Amino acid sequence: MDEFGLIEEFFTRPARRAEVVLGIGDDAALLALAGATSTLAVTTDTLVEGVHFRPSAPSFDVGYKALAVNVSDLAAMGARPLAFLLSLAVPMADRTWLAGFRDGLFTLADAVGLDLIGGDTVRGPLAVTITALGSVAPGAALRRDGARPGDRVYVSGQLGEAALGFLLRAGRLSLPSRFHESVLTRLDRPWPRIHEGQALIGIASAAIDISDGLVADLGHILKASGVGAELDLRRLPLSEAYDAAFATVGYDPAIAFGDDYELCFTVPPERVQALAGIAPHPPCGFHYIGDIVAGAGLTLRDGQGVYTPAQAGYNHFDGPAPL
Amino acid sequence: MDEFGLIEEFFTRPARRAEVVLGIGDDAALLALAGATSTLAVTTDTLVEGVHFRPSAPSFDVGYKALAVNVSDLAAMGARPLAFLLSLAVPMADRTWLAGFRDGLFTLADAVGLDLIGGDTVRGPLAVTITALGSVAPGAALRRDGARPGDRVYVSGQLGEAALGFLLRAGRLSLPSRFHESVLTRLDRPWPRIHEGQALIGIASAAIDISDGLVADLGHILKASGVGAELDLRRLPLSEAYDAAFATVGYDPAIAFGDDYELCFTVPPERVQALAGIAPHPPCGFHYIGDIVAGAGLTLRDGQGVYTPAQAGYNHFDGPAPL
Repeated sequence: MDEFGLIEEFFTRPARRAEVVLGIGDDAALLALAGATSTLAVTTDTLVEGVHFRPSAPSFDVGYKALAVNVSDLAAMGARPLAFLLSLAVPMADRTWLAGFRDGLFTLADAVGLDLIGGDTVRGPLAVTITALGSVAPGAALRRDGARPGDRVYVSGQLGEAALGFLLRAGRLSLPSRFHESVLTRLDRPWPRIHEGQALIGIASAAIDISDGLVADLGHILKASGVGAELDLRRLPLSEAYDAAFATVGYDPAIAFGDDYELCFTVPPERVQALAGIAPHPPCGFHYIGDIVAGAGLTLRDGQGVYTPAQAGYNHFDGPAPL
Repeated sequence: MDEFGLIEEFFTRPARRAEVVLGIGDDAALLALAGATSTLAVTTDTLVEGVHFRPSAPSFDVGYKALAVNVSDLAAMGARPLAFLLSLAVPMADRTWLAGFRDGLFTLADAVGLDLIGGDTVRGPLAVTITALGSVAPGAALRRDGARPGDRVYVSGQLGEAALGFLLRAGRLSLPSRFHESVLTRLDRPWPRIHEGQALIGIASAAIDISDGLVADLGHILKASGVGAELDLRRLPLSEAYDAAFATVGYDPAIAFGDDYELCFTVPPERVQALAGIAPHPPCGFHYIGDIVAGAGLTLRDGQGVYTPAQAGYNHFDGPAPL
């Protein structure tokens, strides 16, 4: 199988979106945007075998998650998904692996309305790079730099589920078996908050998706906005599974592990009421966890006083890699 | 050095293009296109250490070439370069390597007017994925599917120089020393034909950049256009260095190796005159090498009759990898 046969067999489908003028098969793809009403949002993320996913990971999950982490970035901008490009490095052309990968990729692509419009397949250590393109009305994007003192800090869904899944799979956590599937699914197939992101336009003053952990990612909002924040950890949205593990793991997996792909966002007090008008899909809820304050830095409080996490966010170059 | 420090130290520069609404530092970059007059052209390519470049390659050349191969795809669409995203997988954060890589990358980015607007840095086997964005007037892009019988086939510049550089470096070719620098430079720092591509809009009926070799890449035009072609190999634009090697290597390096990053394009007879109005930059010349014919397939002729190359194009999954 050559490179072109591989693309034709596994990845070529008719484009569905009207914006796609030309998809896979030329030197570049062509996309028509209604420039007066749309700004292009573009993001790229790479997953490397042995760093971002374990070598034994099902290829369905690799394909799904590689796209999910990119879609989550579009969600955090409030962008509408349009199209994506895939660069796939594989040591060899393994049909079974590729079919599963393709299925995982397209399952999410279809769910959020993304056309695959181009890419590259090369021989190399297994790695997946996806570039996702979306559109957002001019001036409407949810940036990181809009938080102001007095704004409330919210997160969607529940935090720490993926962390529990990681600890469970690594044999570092016991958890009642009825929780196993849900925490592993949250780790392997996160659902990007694409609907919530678009709904938050005009309501949120700043937003980010939680990929490196709440502390690290909220930290990016604080730095970009030139503000501080105070969070009450007792307000964190934790699942029944997390409650079962809390005595063992405490707060850290929910705030300092990452891979949640929930949204963290800030809302000026006068717009808080508008949140009630958003029906999250699937149901996730928005949870008020603290406030933006003048100054800099993040203060965490639990029932005992100020809380300091053992590690703040995942760093590829200073820390161990989660597998 | 953490991931964010790495990006800040090496890759963050103010955006220069007016189209860049938001560059590095948020969940996604934002780009404003004049939708009524512009279509977005987008392409991605990955270079992997040990497959696309040798482990000892200077990082300047890796950065330059990773961008060049993408810009060449924009050139082949006739697109104007706007911006690019960089995904960089490195085993560790080596400041010296990164500084050279950055310099090579930005040398070409500055030369063609591309802003770096986003990306990802991850730990992993060394690999570089770039996604390049350009704009082209609606309906004007140089696609692969517009060649018609009677059109003439042209190439820009000279072919086979990069192949000679590869063979020379591999110790498989002797060449007078006065030619060494030029053939190695053509291999390591190809100049994408971005000016020529834009100038060919309204003149060329189809175009592609030569990355896999003339035979393979013209083959893509023929397949997409549903036509055949007949080339006279004696018309190939070969350099003085190639002439010196011809007795040893014959035609194959010029037609079946690739890495030329010249343009191959077709022109209807009535527009051939218009080619004379294009001043290539740097001077490269356009060379008439054959004709599009009805039917399918590519016929090559030399002085003796029909010529068959030993191998047609580079394939990552069936053949050995050039290093």
